[in-house]
This record gives sequence, structure tokens and C-alpha cells, in this order.
Amino acid sequence: MELDVANFYEILSPRCTVLVSTADKQGRPNAAPFSFVTPVSANPPLVLIASAPNRHTLSNIRETGEFVLNIVPESILDKMWLCSKAFPKGVSEIKEAGLTERKSKHVRAPSVEECAGWIECRLESEHKAGDHVLIVGRVLHAGCHDDLMKGEQFDVARAKPVMHIRGKRFVAAERIVTVKD
Amino acid sequence: MELDVANFYEILSPRCTVLVSTADKQGRPNAAPFSFVTPVSANPPLVLIASAPNRHTLSNIRETGEFVLNIVPESILDKMWLCSKAFPKGVSEIKEAGLTERKSKHVRAPSVEECAGWIECRLESEHKAGDHVLIVGRVLHAGCHDDLMKGEQFDVARAKPVMHIRGKRFVAAERIVTVKD
Repeated sequence: MELDVANFYEILSPRCTVLVSTADKQGRPNAAPFSFVTPVSANPPLVLIASAPNRHTLSNIRETGEFVLNIVPESILDKMWLCSKAFPKGVSEIKEAGLTERKSKHVRAPSVEECAGWIECRLESEHKAGDHVLIVGRVLHAGCHDDLMKGEQFDVARAKPVMHIRGKRFVAAERIVTVKD
Repeated sequence: MELDVANFYEILSPRCTVLVSTADKQGRPNAAPFSFVTPVSANPPLVLIASAPNRHTLSNIRETGEFVLNIVPESILDKMWLCSKAFPKGVSEIKEAGLTERKSKHVRAPSVEECAGWIECRLESEHKAGDHVLIVGRVLHAGCHDDLMKGEQFDVARAKPVMHIRGKRFVAAERIVTVKD
């Protein structure tokens, strides 16, 4: 069946979902969920997020050139959702949602302690794309909670990262399948 | 713990995985899996994939300006993987993997019948990003198998789309969680 083309991303799903944490130039933290996100390069390590033009996340990235992608486990899904609400600029969604600010290693923007992992980025370039702005970031540091790695593998079944379908519907990643080859 | 920054995408996972089908200017089909993919705009509807510079997918998109994102259900994971092997240009990975070419609605590139859904695109712009090329496509048409939609909702639990972690490890999307609000 044919879908309304404006809702095409209903089937390009579920999508990796991250809490993007930033700070404004006065150092006041902000966090908001994004599911238009993907790695785009390994060497140099680059990520991309697409932001609506009116988001505090975008204005903070433009002010400071820094942001953190926080990987969201199922255990904080409802708190992540609270971070999508409209708070005045300067109010920390991290605190409002009952989450904890964690000092980052290479950027002034805080990370979110309760998240599974953290990818610290510096703004590399910006491009216009329809009704969103593409933000490409250089990965400066990546880390995660010790108990969520098995050797060099992210323990997805334990972390249960959430992935967005649309609206309030998400998938909790859980069942690993391995290609037979 | 700190991760090797070159493997940061191990934790930016699992990621939406699609089979990108194209045709070269002679009309010969090609398909290859990508997991660096995301919607980037709703109006106009735009998608983005990041491609290594040497892929047949990229040269075909440059030749014809067209491509299709095919949503991969768990049932064809091993066949999708076969499409990542190095076949000579002009050989159809779709046929080699035992999959079926399906006529697209608005582009000459075929879709893949066994996939859950199909997003037909026309090349909108191209940007360099590290060791990959960003391809932004305008969505011309989106559709899926009738039995995989419940009203306007994609039946993820039934389609079980696969999502990439790294190497041969994937997640089959299955368990839906809904935000309490």
C-alpha cells in the first residue's frame, strides 16, 4: 500500500535515539531527544544529526561548537520524553527530568549519567536540508558504563537502547541476531 | 570506560538498516546494505545515506540520480548480507542473493519484493564528510506490504526490521514500548 509521503519515516524505523546535551555560552545545560541521527564517517570519526531550526540544541551548538550524544536505555525512556517538552532557554531538561549531569571529558556540555554511553563532539560543518539543518560533528571521545561492554562489544541486550518509530512509540533493542556466513 | 574513537558507532547502535537498490545508466540493477542512514526532513521529505566513495551504489546514483531504500525484515537477513559481497559492476545482487526485483513506481531502479517497505528517492544533493559521501535524496514515493500496516502505523512487531550493531551482529526489532505521558 502507498503511504503519505510526508510520513515516510514511519517505515524508516525504528531509529537510533539519542539525548543530545549541550550548554549555551553561559554554560547552562540543555538536553533534547533526536532520532534523525547517524554516524557518517569512521576516520575521521563523524556523526550527523538533523535539527529543526528553532531548537535550543541548535542555537547552543552554534554558540559553543560542542555537543554530546547520550545513548538512551529503556530504563529512562519516560525521563528522556520529558526532555522533549518546551522548557525556557537556560533551564536544564536533565535536572527537570530527574536525570543527573555528568562532567564530560573534552567538552563543556555535560553528559547524562543515566545514559548507556556518551559520544562527545565538536561541530565540524552545517548544511541546510529541507525543513531541518544537518549538523556534522567530529567525535572527540566515546565512552560507556563499564558493565555495558563485553570486550569490544556493546552489550545491547543489557543496555536495551530505545529506538523511535513515531510519536510515543519506541522499540527496546533486545534480541541479537547474527548473520550466518 | 573509554572506547576506541574509531569504533564510536559500536554504541551509536543498533542502527536502521536498509538495502539500497539502484540501476546503472544501462539499467542493470544493484543492491547493497547501508546502516548509515536517516530521515533528515519531513516537508520536503528527505533522507540521507552515507556511502564509502568506491561503492557501486554511489556511482549508480551519480549516473541516474535515483535510488530506493528497502526496509529489511529479519526473514531475509542472510540474503541481505550476501548483497554486501563484492560482485562485479552490472551483476544484480538482488538475483544473486535469491531475492526478487520489483518494479518501482517513480524510478527506474528496482525495489526488492521481499523487503517490508520501499522508499523511492531522487538525488537532491551530495556533500563530502570524512571518509564517506553524504547523499541526500528527495522521497518520491513510499509504500509497504499491505499486511505490515495497522492503520497509519507500521507493524514493527510483525515486520521485525533488522538493525545493525557492527560486523555480523544485528538486532531484530520486536518489542514496542510506549511513553507514559
